[in-house]
Amino acid sequence: MEWNPKSKVPIPTFADIVSAHKKILPYIHRTPVHTSNSLNQIAGCNLYFKCENFQKVGAFKARGALNAVLSFPKNELTNGIATHSSGNHAQAIAYAGKIVGTKATIIMPSNASAPKVSAVRSFGADIIFCEPNQKSREEALKTFVEKTNAKFIHPYDNFFVIAGQGTASKELLEDFPNLDFILTPVGGGGLLSGTSITTKAISNKTKIIGVEPKGADDAFRSLSDNKIYPSIEPKTIADGLLTSLSEMTFTIIKKNVYQILTVSEESIVEAMKLIFERMKIVVEPSGAVPLAGILEFPNIFDGKNVGIILSGGNVDLSKLPF
Amino acid sequence: MEWNPKSKVPIPTFADIVSAHKKILPYIHRTPVHTSNSLNQIAGCNLYFKCENFQKVGAFKARGALNAVLSFPKNELTNGIATHSSGNHAQAIAYAGKIVGTKATIIMPSNASAPKVSAVRSFGADIIFCEPNQKSREEALKTFVEKTNAKFIHPYDNFFVIAGQGTASKELLEDFPNLDFILTPVGGGGLLSGTSITTKAISNKTKIIGVEPKGADDAFRSLSDNKIYPSIEPKTIADGLLTSLSEMTFTIIKKNVYQILTVSEESIVEAMKLIFERMKIVVEPSGAVPLAGILEFPNIFDGKNVGIILSGGNVDLSKLPF
Repeated sequence: MEWNPKSKVPIPTFADIVSAHKKILPYIHRTPVHTSNSLNQIAGCNLYFKCENFQKVGAFKARGALNAVLSFPKNELTNGIATHSSGNHAQAIAYAGKIVGTKATIIMPSNASAPKVSAVRSFGADIIFCEPNQKSREEALKTFVEKTNAKFIHPYDNFFVIAGQGTASKELLEDFPNLDFILTPVGGGGLLSGTSITTKAISNKTKIIGVEPKGADDAFRSLSDNKIYPSIEPKTIADGLLTSLSEMTFTIIKKNVYQILTVSEESIVEAMKLIFERMKIVVEPSGAVPLAGILEFPNIFDGKNVGIILSGGNVDLSKLPF
Repeated sequence: MEWNPKSKVPIPTFADIVSAHKKILPYIHRTPVHTSNSLNQIAGCNLYFKCENFQKVGAFKARGALNAVLSFPKNELTNGIATHSSGNHAQAIAYAGKIVGTKATIIMPSNASAPKVSAVRSFGADIIFCEPNQKSREEALKTFVEKTNAKFIHPYDNFFVIAGQGTASKELLEDFPNLDFILTPVGGGGLLSGTSITTKAISNKTKIIGVEPKGADDAFRSLSDNKIYPSIEPKTIADGLLTSLSEMTFTIIKKNVYQILTVSEESIVEAMKLIFERMKIVVEPSGAVPLAGILEFPNIFDGKNVGIILSGGNVDLSKLPF
């Protein structure tokens, strides 16, 4: 643990990520790293995809949620855990609650898709539905937490969540130490933060790049102007990347990350289709965003060894964009 | 090699499959075996999916084609190799031709989809287009072979192709020796034949089951009545399973296979969707047929360890049935 001198917010170190990894190891998959000759030819570089779409709950989010929940002393979990999310963090908290044997409650928007609702329920979590906007979500969560004393676990503005997300790149670099770049998508910045801490510690020569949709480019603008811009009315198919950086993730990313790239919706869809077609795996739009970055900026990656955290595979199959 | 006493056609033995495996090993992937807790719960048994969708050319067909081509003395390949196919065997022969450095020529129907045509071309093979019917294909092939003396490699009625296909279950049983069943789809019967020879040799307690669409149930009827019925106007989404058994595959299957199950189109689509959704992998309809069999006949498999050869992942993504 180190302190962010400006905000006095503690920031995870690599030791915290090693400790997270030990804690969550019995409950996660060590996901495989896939490669594809045909994608390498198209991209002009050697790609190493860390397949977190094969992770528990179908996304890397299981890592951070588990680490956060397992880091509480048992007696602090008697009133349960809670979060608001319509996405992968909802399932991850539901799964973590099941693992530690505490009640998980998820505030979900009333328009959440049926498969997402049933996935959360399949882990035995309770759902409270709210109006589909940020204010209703936060109010519903606040009311619930005040009433029950459940522990709120934020999807990314959380020390232990960030440390958990850093374990994916730890495994990737253990398997493939010789990477010139590691790319992740950026939403709230939890995955990129954890990845950057791990990578700086294990492989200082490896450059860390975050990639986000042009239609949700708040991280790019925040880093450019050195102040956090909220993500206002983001427009992108990458529904996992709609959130804003927090002070914690902004601080970490600013310190460690080489570059933020922004990509078009067309590139995201093209990258997603290539991953389905050439790698025969299912990826959600957010997970295809790093490959879109490589397709749009081939010169940066020409001939290099490039790791990609393929973040998740939870996509509505009836709404594929191709 | 053993002799089929009736027809004097040589039948591969397990020794031929071991020899095939050694020959093709440098050019194929040892594909992973995936499992899924959530699918196990749905199916009521323990499923082990041999992921041949991750194989070279996206299907097990690379194994048989390579073994056939690598089994010719080099000097017999100077006039090239040829086949007719609009499916995975076309790509497999194109790939095998590239590996051994001989010209591959594929007779394809004029209505073959653009991705399939470009996949074949990507391996440097020539394509001759013909009218989209069996007669035109066979005539075009015959004309070409007579003119060029190229070696014709049949997709399944071929000793070395069958031996090559048997290497997938060899790897599966090496990784998971304790299987009660192994299931494959049945079209012409090459995969089922090779699988059955391997399985009988390595694990006599493992029952071999072939699964085919009700709309293309010629193998089921052939085994029931002990005579080969041709596949006439088959109607199924499983476009890899339209062909008829040959005398060679019929003989092997009759001798080794425990049962043929037939499944509805609805089950095939449901199984395919479950594989995409729960396993996050891309499978073609034919590859989902064995899981459809388990969903339709749960009593056979209740609580058992069941291996499935997930045969391929080459599906037109713009025409997914869900």
